Amino acid sequence: MRKTYLLTPGPTPIPESISALFAKPIIHHRTPAFQNLFEEVRHGLKYLYQTKGEVLLLTTTGTGAMETAITNLFQKGQKVITINGGKFGERWTQLAQTFGLHPIEIALPPGDALEPAALEECVIQNPDARAILFQASETSTGVVMPTEDICRIASRAGMLSVCDAITACGVFDLPMDTWGIDVLITGSQKALMLPPGLAMISLSEKAWQAHERADLPRFYFDLSRERHAQTKNQTAWTPAISLIQGLQESLRMIRDEGLHNVFKRHELLAKATRSAVKALHLELLSKKAPSNAVTAVIVPSSISDGKLIPKLMRDKHGVIIAGGQDELEGKIIRLSHFGYCDRFDIITGISALELTLQELGHSFELGHGVRAILKTYSENPKP
Amino acid sequence: MRKTYLLTPGPTPIPESISALFAKPIIHHRTPAFQNLFEEVRHGLKYLYQTKGEVLLLTTTGTGAMETAITNLFQKGQKVITINGGKFGERWTQLAQTFGLHPIEIALPPGDALEPAALEECVIQNPDARAILFQASETSTGVVMPTEDICRIASRAGMLSVCDAITACGVFDLPMDTWGIDVLITGSQKALMLPPGLAMISLSEKAWQAHERADLPRFYFDLSRERHAQTKNQTAWTPAISLIQGLQESLRMIRDEGLHNVFKRHELLAKATRSAVKALHLELLSKKAPSNAVTAVIVPSSISDGKLIPKLMRDKHGVIIAGGQDELEGKIIRLSHFGYCDRFDIITGISALELTLQELGHSFELGHGVRAILKTYSENPKP
Repeated sequence: MRKTYLLTPGPTPIPESISALFAKPIIHHRTPAFQNLFEEVRHGLKYLYQTKGEVLLLTTTGTGAMETAITNLFQKGQKVITINGGKFGERWTQLAQTFGLHPIEIALPPGDALEPAALEECVIQNPDARAILFQASETSTGVVMPTEDICRIASRAGMLSVCDAITACGVFDLPMDTWGIDVLITGSQKALMLPPGLAMISLSEKAWQAHERADLPRFYFDLSRERHAQTKNQTAWTPAISLIQGLQESLRMIRDEGLHNVFKRHELLAKATRSAVKALHLELLSKKAPSNAVTAVIVPSSISDGKLIPKLMRDKHGVIIAGGQDELEGKIIRLSHFGYCDRFDIITGISALELTLQELGHSFELGHGVRAILKTYSENPKP
Repeated sequence: MRKTYLLTPGPTPIPESISALFAKPIIHHRTPAFQNLFEEVRHGLKYLYQTKGEVLLLTTTGTGAMETAITNLFQKGQKVITINGGKFGERWTQLAQTFGLHPIEIALPPGDALEPAALEECVIQNPDARAILFQASETSTGVVMPTEDICRIASRAGMLSVCDAITACGVFDLPMDTWGIDVLITGSQKALMLPPGLAMISLSEKAWQAHERADLPRFYFDLSRERHAQTKNQTAWTPAISLIQGLQESLRMIRDEGLHNVFKRHELLAKATRSAVKALHLELLSKKAPSNAVTAVIVPSSISDGKLIPKLMRDKHGVIIAGGQDELEGKIIRLSHFGYCDRFDIITGISALELTLQELGHSFELGHGVRAILKTYSENPKP
């Protein structure tokens, strides 16, 4: 017998009630049955996004939705500000370059969050920039970015705030309309607890106006076509029907738990994880702004090959966590705590980490990580 | 109790053994378990495509893969020949225009297949065209196009043959390497018997050479990135993992049945469907080249509102067939007979059609359609 536990920032575990749905026969997408389902999903997505606007579904993964934002909002040669706090921030810069925009990049050391003052300075230096492209949570470093500040700065400067919330939407509070987020993007395999293959994007009125003027070529990802179809409970192209059937259930689960209770659960799990990290004499990569989605932990100097930690956790204990990517490979590990994740999943993850750290010779008191979690739980009633 | 039967050209019914797989826990895509699965899938796709080359997976639907062909093969302003035999042929023209190519369109009346002589003439008139873009089977009209002839003409003229085989690959014989198809595209929700959300594309050596020179902007759909990753059993972006798990099973099913036996089964089902159409005093839209994927039938003049046929079949009998699209709406119906479809599914479809035609006052002898099918089966042993 071998049980497997998925504690990665996407894909996240799929609730059994959703998995079971995928075993049902497929329905056709040009039928009233699909349209009824789609109508409910549209309402559920507006609740998730905290918006009155339309949230459009795309059959793609997160990067496809980021590309969609680029090609649907801008004109060739326009300047944009990108906030590069890691692998996904860097992707905004690459996308902007690929499609002929002129990105001004604010590059942050790994683990650092954006300082609003630095962005304000950049905006003053580049008043002709059309948008600020950023991550609400940078998955590669476990850092939460100051979305509300960024939106305020963007709004004052007449720029669009374009927010990759792929590992943030449904994890912590990002009220789209209240904060004035102009473009909000997420994906199915994160807080929505589904397999990868669906992405969502919503545009503010200001963003739709920019879309009217946008001249970059687009076809599959054209949002005019999608808005036209989806407001009639259809899609422009054949959609990922089975994932949309699952989405109906995951949105129901989020509504049943209550969106703000979901956020509180994630907050508690993140807090517990961070308390365990400290108790194990480990250091967070992000000192000031650790994300409630994923905790990035620096591999201690006592362990020479940091890639061994996720490998041993997976091979010996069946617990899948993420390592670092690109220049952070071998230097950090990342423990995820959102989506279909409860208090005991965190205990499982830290237990496997303790066993692995001991095997690798790291110095700490076995059981202290788990004890810190239990202490956190006993001090913070279940949300 | 209400049973539903799906006889549409995508999505097609999903085998129970595949649906059951979707209820299993998801696996992470950066693990040895996924890489082993992916390795097997790559071999299975080469068998399906009848190619030694790499068949790349994309998390998108068919239109996204068509866009991928356009942006990965050409340079801005290049001329291409498009064969527009219906809605999907028209899409090649639209895509070419959208991305700044110069399409020369051969427009065919609905139901007509391409005459190779007409293409040869067009090639002579446009020796500077870089490619011929076409459908192996035009789903909107139920017409099979002369793929082998098109490839021969393209090859002689030094052009690329770019084949949308979304409802053709795995339906009838399209040996990529033998016929010299330069680009072959398909999607998951057709002969592969999966939900929509995955597409496949393979390039010949000649097409990869064109890719090296291509200068249209692309990021999510960039084939260099995908080839680099997929030959190492990875994907550039997070893939539609659950669909790839299903793909492993569907490719096993195709291999177990034998690719050419699959083709023979489709041929028999198509033949039986056409025999029933004739027996019911109905007319095929395609006189000369009906496709073995889908049979398009002209709505008889005795029925004023052709849209009623699919509607009644669905609402009264639970049998979902497709109607016509765009200018063919209300003028044709389309019965699909590929994928997870056996001899008795055809009898079910024609039975429901007979009941519906009778209700709508069409003049024919009840039961003659089904009788024609049984006659076809008894004369043609099960493949």
